[in-house]
Amino acid sequence: MRATLIHATGDVRLEQVPDPCVEQPTDAVVRVVASCVCGSDLWPYRGENPVRSPRRIGHELVGVVEETGADVRTVKPGDFVIAPFVISCGRCDHCRNGVQTSCRIGQSWGSDTDACQGERVRVPLADGTLVATPEAPDDALVPALLTLSDVMGTGWHAALAAGVRPGSTVAVVGDGAVGLCGVLATSRMGAERVIAMSRHAARQDVARRFGATDVVETRGAEGAAEVAELTGGTGADAVLECVGTGASMEQAFAAARPGGTVGFVGVPHGVEVPVRDMFSRNVGLRGGVAPVRAYLPRLLDDVLCGEIDPGPVFDLELPLAEVAEAYRAMDERRAIKVLLRP
Amino acid sequence: MRATLIHATGDVRLEQVPDPCVEQPTDAVVRVVASCVCGSDLWPYRGENPVRSPRRIGHELVGVVEETGADVRTVKPGDFVIAPFVISCGRCDHCRNGVQTSCRIGQSWGSDTDACQGERVRVPLADGTLVATPEAPDDALVPALLTLSDVMGTGWHAALAAGVRPGSTVAVVGDGAVGLCGVLATSRMGAERVIAMSRHAARQDVARRFGATDVVETRGAEGAAEVAELTGGTGADAVLECVGTGASMEQAFAAARPGGTVGFVGVPHGVEVPVRDMFSRNVGLRGGVAPVRAYLPRLLDDVLCGEIDPGPVFDLELPLAEVAEAYRAMDERRAIKVLLRP
Repeated sequence: MRATLIHATGDVRLEQVPDPCVEQPTDAVVRVVASCVCGSDLWPYRGENPVRSPRRIGHELVGVVEETGADVRTVKPGDFVIAPFVISCGRCDHCRNGVQTSCRIGQSWGSDTDACQGERVRVPLADGTLVATPEAPDDALVPALLTLSDVMGTGWHAALAAGVRPGSTVAVVGDGAVGLCGVLATSRMGAERVIAMSRHAARQDVARRFGATDVVETRGAEGAAEVAELTGGTGADAVLECVGTGASMEQAFAAARPGGTVGFVGVPHGVEVPVRDMFSRNVGLRGGVAPVRAYLPRLLDDVLCGEIDPGPVFDLELPLAEVAEAYRAMDERRAIKVLLRP
Repeated sequence: MRATLIHATGDVRLEQVPDPCVEQPTDAVVRVVASCVCGSDLWPYRGENPVRSPRRIGHELVGVVEETGADVRTVKPGDFVIAPFVISCGRCDHCRNGVQTSCRIGQSWGSDTDACQGERVRVPLADGTLVATPEAPDDALVPALLTLSDVMGTGWHAALAAGVRPGSTVAVVGDGAVGLCGVLATSRMGAERVIAMSRHAARQDVARRFGATDVVETRGAEGAAEVAELTGGTGADAVLECVGTGASMEQAFAAARPGGTVGFVGVPHGVEVPVRDMFSRNVGLRGGVAPVRAYLPRLLDDVLCGEIDPGPVFDLELPLAEVAEAYRAMDERRAIKVLLRP
């Protein structure tokens, strides 16, 4: 079968790899219906994280179970499933606390497992990891379901971490797929005012479609001042930081009101936390790598009943064979997020 | 009248100062019944914060109103009142959001106002700042009521920021008056397991009296490992950081479980926030300078109905004339907290 490997900065290739098979009784083998490229895949692609040797890449998928190990109970061949971006057992203390990303025996895709930008994958700990839809979904739902692998759950995590509640005033820093899903999550949670910070017309459109009530195009101190102005001088109750750079974190803190909270889900690169400012203004910082497995069942319900449709974060669909172009399109910000069909 | 001034590192003196009077229609003049020395008064006393010129010091008091300005509505001469450690208007956006420490026109005691370690004080913004008891309290309640000026409200803030709820497992870093009040707050909030981190027998006793179920004497990584052991390897749901040093913050993060929260109220001195660890383990950080004014009414009810008695944090009482000895006793950790009677 074919799967994507990253060889070096800017160099991803679709190559022949061995077919996966059930190795452990807790494994499942899943045929990929759709995968995609994540903003965090761009860190190694852009050389921000080193690529020491060629490795499989991709951590988001929906697909159909082809085979299961003897101990797998919750999914069976033929099931349509969603795989979160972290593999987790579902049984340890941290999983039971809803922090599946800290699973005692969990793994990341592509470490010593398969990764998702391919035709098939072996899924370890299938019971803890996979979530099956009640029935085979309509093909039109595939993009929305695929977001539950990562970006929708991550946006939800940012909003939850930031303490968004009905009536909140919220600013969202970052207009990538996660930021946009953060807008959608925030508006689903009943926020009254949702300020999307974006200078990109197409992304602003998606943000508005997802419930943004205002768009701020400026950045940094200027952007924060505009958020303050929009909120009568007060600042936002909750700010979602969906980028992960020092500048975006600074902007997030500056946009928060005293007593507010920054929910952060952008992988921190060069971030210094302004602890004195946090202290003097009582601005909290919560979040991290999102335990999307914890949110998947409820977000799946929301998608299936039409309450949310995060599908529009995919504005480009390509065959898996064009995975290199998918990365280029994301890297050059020609696409918000690219869906790949094997 | 007499009031305390700090002249330099290690040098506090009781001196003659002008009598206060009503200067603004929103002022009250209060005769001090009791004041005290705070852990944060030790920062300038120990030279950690510079003392550029002699200045009034002390930010905690209970007392009796002697005179009020024409616009004061909520307190009247003869009322027994508690003053929080920050002066606030009670009307601006931040005050209405319960973050009175960020009041638009608020002040700190001793900036260009009086400070509390004296015989009398002018209280600006008396309506927003002071809370009167329903009737003159029994003298035995004075220590407990005085804690509502700062340490009890600050401990409460730490617990609230850390997300303590019924059934929580909580670790408290710091066995000063604030840490001990954090133990009391945590136990009042219904935590099931309250682990006090202290190596000081007398403070351990107060912690147990305040509801600590366990005491850990070790510090740093060793202390955190002991917390992990006490919690079946998981770590604490919530950790209260009540010191403010780099080492105490490190200990607090190490004691928190994935998905847990550190509530911090120790003024940060040399603290670096471990943002990568926060991200990878989803450990949040919230807190800051406590808006004790927000909690004062409910904590006052708790004290008056006997639900909590934070009074035992005062283990030494001295006449105001011995204020220098009070600072020495705190500095040398001979006393947890010293109450001063003019």
